[in-house]
Amino acid sequence: MGASSENEYSRRGVSATKEEVHALAALLPSPLFPHSFCRVYPDYLTDSAKWATLVHSDGVGTKAILAYLMWKETGDLQVWRQLAQDVVVMNTDDVFCTAAPRHLLYCSLINRNRHKIPGQVLQALVEGTLAFFEAMQRFGVHLHYMGGETADVGDAVRTLTVDAAVTCRIPKNRIVKNEIKPGDVIVGFASYGQATYENCYNSGIGCNGLTSARHDVLKSDYGQRYPETVDPAVDHQLIYRGSRLLLDTYQGYTVADLLLSPTRTYVPLLLAMHENYFDQIHGIVHCTGGGQTKVLHFINNLHIVKNNLFPLPPVFQLVRQESTASLKELYTVFNMGHRLEVYCPEQIAPVLVQLASSFKIEARIIGEVRASDRACLTLHIEHQTIDFYRNSPL
Amino acid sequence: MGASSENEYSRRGVSATKEEVHALAALLPSPLFPHSFCRVYPDYLTDSAKWATLVHSDGVGTKAILAYLMWKETGDLQVWRQLAQDVVVMNTDDVFCTAAPRHLLYCSLINRNRHKIPGQVLQALVEGTLAFFEAMQRFGVHLHYMGGETADVGDAVRTLTVDAAVTCRIPKNRIVKNEIKPGDVIVGFASYGQATYENCYNSGIGCNGLTSARHDVLKSDYGQRYPETVDPAVDHQLIYRGSRLLLDTYQGYTVADLLLSPTRTYVPLLLAMHENYFDQIHGIVHCTGGGQTKVLHFINNLHIVKNNLFPLPPVFQLVRQESTASLKELYTVFNMGHRLEVYCPEQIAPVLVQLASSFKIEARIIGEVRASDRACLTLHIEHQTIDFYRNSPL
Repeated sequence: MGASSENEYSRRGVSATKEEVHALAALLPSPLFPHSFCRVYPDYLTDSAKWATLVHSDGVGTKAILAYLMWKETGDLQVWRQLAQDVVVMNTDDVFCTAAPRHLLYCSLINRNRHKIPGQVLQALVEGTLAFFEAMQRFGVHLHYMGGETADVGDAVRTLTVDAAVTCRIPKNRIVKNEIKPGDVIVGFASYGQATYENCYNSGIGCNGLTSARHDVLKSDYGQRYPETVDPAVDHQLIYRGSRLLLDTYQGYTVADLLLSPTRTYVPLLLAMHENYFDQIHGIVHCTGGGQTKVLHFINNLHIVKNNLFPLPPVFQLVRQESTASLKELYTVFNMGHRLEVYCPEQIAPVLVQLASSFKIEARIIGEVRASDRACLTLHIEHQTIDFYRNSPL
Repeated sequence: MGASSENEYSRRGVSATKEEVHALAALLPSPLFPHSFCRVYPDYLTDSAKWATLVHSDGVGTKAILAYLMWKETGDLQVWRQLAQDVVVMNTDDVFCTAAPRHLLYCSLINRNRHKIPGQVLQALVEGTLAFFEAMQRFGVHLHYMGGETADVGDAVRTLTVDAAVTCRIPKNRIVKNEIKPGDVIVGFASYGQATYENCYNSGIGCNGLTSARHDVLKSDYGQRYPETVDPAVDHQLIYRGSRLLLDTYQGYTVADLLLSPTRTYVPLLLAMHENYFDQIHGIVHCTGGGQTKVLHFINNLHIVKNNLFPLPPVFQLVRQESTASLKELYTVFNMGHRLEVYCPEQIAPVLVQLASSFKIEARIIGEVRASDRACLTLHIEHQTIDFYRNSPL
């Protein structure tokens, strides 16, 4: 990708573009559809020609460290119940970009430092998971908690890691293959606000970029008091160098609320889209790792132009204000306003915007797709034009 | 359990008995069979009354740190290809204690410190996984690599964690329910030696107890040179306090070979048992976390007596020699000689021993089951009698 490998995110030990990780995928058996958001395979479990199957895994990354800081500061376990939503949604929303299964098998994987993370934290995580499953059940989406593993590995893990895997079975003829076409428009769906199924404001932060957000926004104080939240190999100039405390307020929200807002799920919206507009949708992308450049993994000869992006919600204004990173880096690391985008013919766009509005999720046409001789992306942000290219073939 | 919470394993931040983790299971939906080794649920994916489904996850724990030390010392990536077998087998062998699925969906989950673990390590792990899958395929067991997640989380992880999840679908009438009965004998199957399907000697170490083995056997030198392999919160007197270097030899093997020997899979043997002796088998236990006390999680009013355990193979002789832990602790932390045990009527035992011998896996009757008014276990080791009790009801 065009993003510099010398950026701050990288110097903090995180790769937004994850070239090394994407290279591994080439070693695995080819999935049924080269561009589908999740890897889909034949239905090995029943050997049915009409069905396909999918196992997906993802986690909360270093958002767990922010939860840890907040819990240490306040003693309130609620932050762990919220974090449970993050790990579920990082999985469900990837899956629902691909298809809309009614049943998902869920399995959790936690690695902890037992000196730092007691059993009550694990319990809060399980409780939060089950509560979120219950909320999803009201939409007819059944997540089944099948078990999991919690390992005590203090020599390997400073605090904890929180991951999960989901398995589902989907009809082959109801899979979004991400066959994006020149002439398509891009409908973006806000990552922030308060959807009808949310009980408070969601900042939109999601689960990506939290290493940067934490170090850029929070004061050095946290590094001194919680050395277990810092990789000693990272240049200390990149560590907790912000101006804020977790309980400071910014535009009426606490910094903790902004940074720890649980990842919004788009599942109710995506379910309605799959059921009602499947034939008109060419592609669905979950803007997670890679932020607004994520789509580059799913196209070949196309030029994606995003020229009407959402205004920055408060959390990203805060991050931008505190960070020295370029706009190019910020849009590669964070979703910056929308975490879901749908590629479709222009005439269907108003219908999708209307559908989103029925869930009180803001939506708009944020760009368009043009023919090209390579995979490229242009972001028009304020008065800047920022170009990205995918160098490696898919 | 009867094991003291003040033992050395615990002070190193690891719980062999994992009370806190087992308590979480009570929060989850009840599985179909209360005592089956893996949690089995209805077949939510197809809603078939005849089938059940299972998602299992496990990882290599701190064996990854030993692999890291060896790789840093030698530069040889082979150790990571071997570690791939560990993570697969920690999952497959749990599953095969429950049933014998022919297809398993596999998904990997790696959290790494990108400053310490480059892409070539990830690649070696994937290569090793695929090579092991190929070996299993010769027995008609098909592991499908469906994808995975690799997260860069250096602020959370000192080196790396290596985990996986497997999903499978099994006929309800072919599940070992662990209905262990008074009068049953216990057949143990050696964790060490060289099975027909192994290409070199296996020490039997498996994937449990490696935090203790590493610190008790290896010299302080490693802690000084690789501080990233130590939790600074642990009493430094418990850290790398052994007398050996990785390339020292012990009874003709290098210490590295003994400690890093990949976890033996019993899948070919278990498959043959499920196919030929399913009706005669009352219980199967994989002696992983909890070592020789594992069975206590699967019984109620029974007294398990193990009075003919295997002699210690070299790796556990080495650990015992270097450790100050009690025999009680050692048998709770390590498998100490057999990692698989089958509970069955006495008359079938010779047949199972014979079957194992066809794979060149040593087997013997290691004990028996008696009626009791509670769940308890006695190990007769040398001239000691060691008792364990399960205090909490299942």
